[in-house]
Amino acid sequence: MKHALSVTRADDFAQWYQEVISEAEMAEESGVRGCMVIKPWGYGIWERIQHLMDARIKAAGVQNCYFPLFIPLSYFAKEAEHVDGFAKEMAVVTHHRLIQDGKGGLVPDPEAKLEEPLIVRPTSETVIGQAMSRWIQSWRDLPLLTNQWANVVRWEMRTRMFLRTSEFLWQEGHTAHANRDDAMAETLRALEMYRSHAEDDLAMPVIAGEKPENERFPGAVATYSIEAMMQDGKALQAGTSHYLGTGFAEAANIRYQDKEGSQQLCHTTSWGVSTRLIGGVIMTHGDDDGLRVPPRIAPHQIVILPMLREDDGDEALLAYCEELRAALASQWALGEPVRVLLDKRAGKATAKRWGWVKKGVPLILEIGGRDAAGGQVSAVRRDRLYREDGKVNFVGQSREDFLAAAAGELEDIQRTLHAEATARRDAQIHRGVTDLAGLEAFFSADQRYPGWVEVLWSRPTGAALEAVVAKLKALKLTIRNTPMNGEPVSGTCLFTGEPAVERIFVARAY
Amino acid sequence: MKHALSVTRADDFAQWYQEVISEAEMAEESGVRGCMVIKPWGYGIWERIQHLMDARIKAAGVQNCYFPLFIPLSYFAKEAEHVDGFAKEMAVVTHHRLIQDGKGGLVPDPEAKLEEPLIVRPTSETVIGQAMSRWIQSWRDLPLLTNQWANVVRWEMRTRMFLRTSEFLWQEGHTAHANRDDAMAETLRALEMYRSHAEDDLAMPVIAGEKPENERFPGAVATYSIEAMMQDGKALQAGTSHYLGTGFAEAANIRYQDKEGSQQLCHTTSWGVSTRLIGGVIMTHGDDDGLRVPPRIAPHQIVILPMLREDDGDEALLAYCEELRAALASQWALGEPVRVLLDKRAGKATAKRWGWVKKGVPLILEIGGRDAAGGQVSAVRRDRLYREDGKVNFVGQSREDFLAAAAGELEDIQRTLHAEATARRDAQIHRGVTDLAGLEAFFSADQRYPGWVEVLWSRPTGAALEAVVAKLKALKLTIRNTPMNGEPVSGTCLFTGEPAVERIFVARAY
Repeated sequence: MKHALSVTRADDFAQWYQEVISEAEMAEESGVRGCMVIKPWGYGIWERIQHLMDARIKAAGVQNCYFPLFIPLSYFAKEAEHVDGFAKEMAVVTHHRLIQDGKGGLVPDPEAKLEEPLIVRPTSETVIGQAMSRWIQSWRDLPLLTNQWANVVRWEMRTRMFLRTSEFLWQEGHTAHANRDDAMAETLRALEMYRSHAEDDLAMPVIAGEKPENERFPGAVATYSIEAMMQDGKALQAGTSHYLGTGFAEAANIRYQDKEGSQQLCHTTSWGVSTRLIGGVIMTHGDDDGLRVPPRIAPHQIVILPMLREDDGDEALLAYCEELRAALASQWALGEPVRVLLDKRAGKATAKRWGWVKKGVPLILEIGGRDAAGGQVSAVRRDRLYREDGKVNFVGQSREDFLAAAAGELEDIQRTLHAEATARRDAQIHRGVTDLAGLEAFFSADQRYPGWVEVLWSRPTGAALEAVVAKLKALKLTIRNTPMNGEPVSGTCLFTGEPAVERIFVARAY
Repeated sequence: MKHALSVTRADDFAQWYQEVISEAEMAEESGVRGCMVIKPWGYGIWERIQHLMDARIKAAGVQNCYFPLFIPLSYFAKEAEHVDGFAKEMAVVTHHRLIQDGKGGLVPDPEAKLEEPLIVRPTSETVIGQAMSRWIQSWRDLPLLTNQWANVVRWEMRTRMFLRTSEFLWQEGHTAHANRDDAMAETLRALEMYRSHAEDDLAMPVIAGEKPENERFPGAVATYSIEAMMQDGKALQAGTSHYLGTGFAEAANIRYQDKEGSQQLCHTTSWGVSTRLIGGVIMTHGDDDGLRVPPRIAPHQIVILPMLREDDGDEALLAYCEELRAALASQWALGEPVRVLLDKRAGKATAKRWGWVKKGVPLILEIGGRDAAGGQVSAVRRDRLYREDGKVNFVGQSREDFLAAAAGELEDIQRTLHAEATARRDAQIHRGVTDLAGLEAFFSADQRYPGWVEVLWSRPTGAALEAVVAKLKALKLTIRNTPMNGEPVSGTCLFTGEPAVERIFVARAY
């Protein structure tokens, strides 16, 4: 069977990923180191993610704000672990003006050097902490629940589109609470929000759990993540939620007067998801013909392609298609009005069809003059693109039957993509490895997609954990997370031989 | 009559403006030079503006993208006028890492100095031009219509919240066309989009017109603006649209093959509005009790305040209010579902009422136990806050009558705010001044709000225009714009004495 991409997943997964992004016209290199241009189809998916996530954030009573892009260096310096974690990858603004260099070029003006360098935010705990310290006086001001949609910059050495770019787009929630329990409840609420967004909106199965100590956000007391399995068996950390304890509150002086009148430090949290989710969607749902977008996040859920012939018949054909478009646009699916595009651009219908196939539109309709005359619709589901004989799986139906079934088809595609991904993920989670040699043997075996291994461990900390991490690193492996609400375990730790206390996932990762 | 603010517009307009922002909890100084924190109420208004503007942008077939925050210095250097216009206010990134300074502090790492400085975008013509040159090959690729919602940075010496901040939020449209006519049509389409957004969404009357040569965007062939009159008679440039000719296309090599097979330069445009619009809304609609938000952009159009007594009656009261909230939320006004908040926070109802008055919620309801028992609603329109006797103008109605009228009230408030502002603006546009002495006398006269003067002029250019601008500058005056579709004029130019060709507005400005 011939596919729309030149590289298959089996050929070269990394190359395939780049080709999906390019052929689906989602993004491209910008010419600015490590930064990408997000093109309309990629940005349209991000707008859908924003729309759905923003509704979840607002439903939790969190209010959107906007904080400065620039953070004075001194704000960072107050939280030692935090600054250590980010200092190596910070973009630093040092001047506020350019002047002629006398050779026809421009240089930063030495007279316009900033007294204190400004950091382009890599994350906003420190600057939002300053605002919180102004906004919070008494227990009545708590909880304080804020979020911002913003761009952030982390100067990464190796970048990959959507997964790791020097600048990326994200939301960052920041909250302050009266005590540990309230802050921890919010941390876990955000984690659950991310889990359900991934599963229900992105059709991307994830495991929500706690990261090991070595993988904590710089300055956090506990970090939780959702971890998704890509089709190559690697893990993708797709969202994180942090309980920050009182460290950031101390650094920014976020205090409140409790009911008894004494001053207390707040307990803070932060949580974020980014344009990285789009990379996860590609590597979860893409196939050898390009992307497959879950209907809930598809900018267009249905595209209608009239098979124009540049003759008198086109007018009736377009009228029929427009009527079909309007009828679909007045329907609801997955809780929202159906998003449908009538693609009237000039060009061969087949070429246009494959363009939409590569972009992953859930339902593609091709309507010819005969369909219009006979009140028919010919449609293909992107998740069932080919018949057994290798031909494209267009199904003809009466207009009435199609309209009656369309919303249900979209809902079924959403379900099917989720079920497929979940079955694949579950089949690639392996158990029963009990020692390091076994782990090494498992990941060294000749298998294309080793997947994840769930092992028992004793939750070592400090130097003991570092030793474990070093051993895993030699095997190019990482600890992903300990699933929430795990059943009690009995047995010994694969790494330390001590009594195990919980399960963890070990995997290669993006 | 006692007002909710400590400063009135008549006392000190600039101070009043700051107090509205602070008391309505819209924004505050961030501690980072020239940057503000936009708080939930200010950001909520921005989200409404984004929502309405984005729909207008998409309806015109423009597609959203995202381009890099950083622009290599060399991209700017290609368009000489453009770089000259912005060089004095550019934030420059020179390093990508910090290191310990040996004294317990951190400094930019000299080993991590960028080979080429990066500019934090003040506007994105240059970087988007690079993308356009990749995306456009043939006449079939035109027009190319893109937009981005983004933050930009211009290092302003004097800043004022919402009006002029070092970092601000905006949308910037960028389009490429085959010829001048198409590009000019797009420039004027965007101008008209801004005009109708200002008038219909913000209830802010504006005059759309062409800026004089000296006020053009750096590198533009023609710049158009919408100009609004603030309550102190000053002008606010509230949006601009530029026809850029082929200059940026030449700098970035944006060319297409025409139908005859020869290479042609594209004609480009750009257009933008920013968070500055919020400053315009404040100074158009605010009064001595705070902001008045036009219903179309109000985050909450109706707030229900139950007069809680912390006794058994509260349960029935809250049930009544919740039922009222649901009934309102299921209605539509101004083309969208009604946005209604039930404010159940603890605290005195009067204090809460004045909080919402200062924020400018269009309709405020206070519901007591007796109202709940009797099926009554007591409501006040923010634009009719006081009765003649100085008391707050609450009007009691039956629940049924109120529900039947609510959507109409919101629509009437939108209309009323627009009509009020238009009448005030029109009364402050003066005509009949024919010479410079007269202009000086007019603006020197003892009048609090001089407004604008419409004069005839000969559209001088070059040195002749510079002489005019210098004369006006001495009077702290500026030329705003020449209204679109003006009637033919006859007479002599106020400045040059030559035959006049058009009308222009002269005014003090923000």
